[in-house]
Amino acid sequence: MENTVQLNPTLEQIVLSPQQLLAHWQGHRGLTRRLIEAYPDEHFFSYSLGGMRPCSALIDEVLHMADQSMQGVISGNWPSYENGTEESPKATTKQQVLDQWDRVTEKIDAYWPQISPARFQEVDKAFGLYEGPIYWFLFYLIDNEIHHRGQAYVYLRTLGIEPPAFWDRPQA
Amino acid sequence: MENTVQLNPTLEQIVLSPQQLLAHWQGHRGLTRRLIEAYPDEHFFSYSLGGMRPCSALIDEVLHMADQSMQGVISGNWPSYENGTEESPKATTKQQVLDQWDRVTEKIDAYWPQISPARFQEVDKAFGLYEGPIYWFLFYLIDNEIHHRGQAYVYLRTLGIEPPAFWDRPQA
Repeated sequence: MENTVQLNPTLEQIVLSPQQLLAHWQGHRGLTRRLIEAYPDEHFFSYSLGGMRPCSALIDEVLHMADQSMQGVISGNWPSYENGTEESPKATTKQQVLDQWDRVTEKIDAYWPQISPARFQEVDKAFGLYEGPIYWFLFYLIDNEIHHRGQAYVYLRTLGIEPPAFWDRPQA
Repeated sequence: MENTVQLNPTLEQIVLSPQQLLAHWQGHRGLTRRLIEAYPDEHFFSYSLGGMRPCSALIDEVLHMADQSMQGVISGNWPSYENGTEESPKATTKQQVLDQWDRVTEKIDAYWPQISPARFQEVDKAFGLYEGPIYWFLFYLIDNEIHHRGQAYVYLRTLGIEPPAFWDRPQA
């Protein structure tokens, strides 16, 4: 009698599943949200180092790219990327940023199951600008967030504030 | 006559392949190498902001974790993580760091094909410290590199030096 567990062969060969990638991204987004919360209101839109953009602008980029990416990831119909939209105007307070952040978190969760399994390997031109497989573009979004959040950690440290722990992200 | 291309069904369902993950990691490592090259020798081991570690220490962590991870990723036998080993002692010049970096690049390429396809989903405790699936640990290494490199970008900007372009990484 053959009583070994018959795993789905695809499950034995995947690096990570779409659900795990979603959890990975949302884990990073949760950490970035805690970074925004920790950031002093009076410095969020103004403080910077080395001629760089303030934290608000770094977060704006990350937030709006994620927001506007979802439709294209699913359908291949890409809007032109805009740094602020009717649905999500440029925030002028930290609370507005956090509210937009939470809206995008829900949007990603809602759109994600609509990504067809074959879609991750399809080559597309995101926002008419970023050409490559969809998995590559999704990692670009995630990596860009990590990159800018790391920069905001330095801003925070020079303001004398301890950032949230980098490793503190839930697993899938 | 059925003449549509019969793709391997697993290839239609994967987010990314092990080869693509390797290329993703090495693409980031290539960018980090250019960051190290761009960093002024006289500041590499000393300059910092906000009481943080200098660039050399951030890079040391990234380099040694990658170096010492490979054996465990493949076999499940983890060394204790050490910030400097006999094979790879603590560097005292930027050129030594670059040489170690290149050695680790070759090591990752050499070990990678030995990772069994099922291994990415196996739960392990990397270095006896980081518990989770292997894919998760590999992303931890990559993300930690992006995080610290982003911090080094700020150091560089405050030194008046333009860092290499973040998006300039080859695709798989």
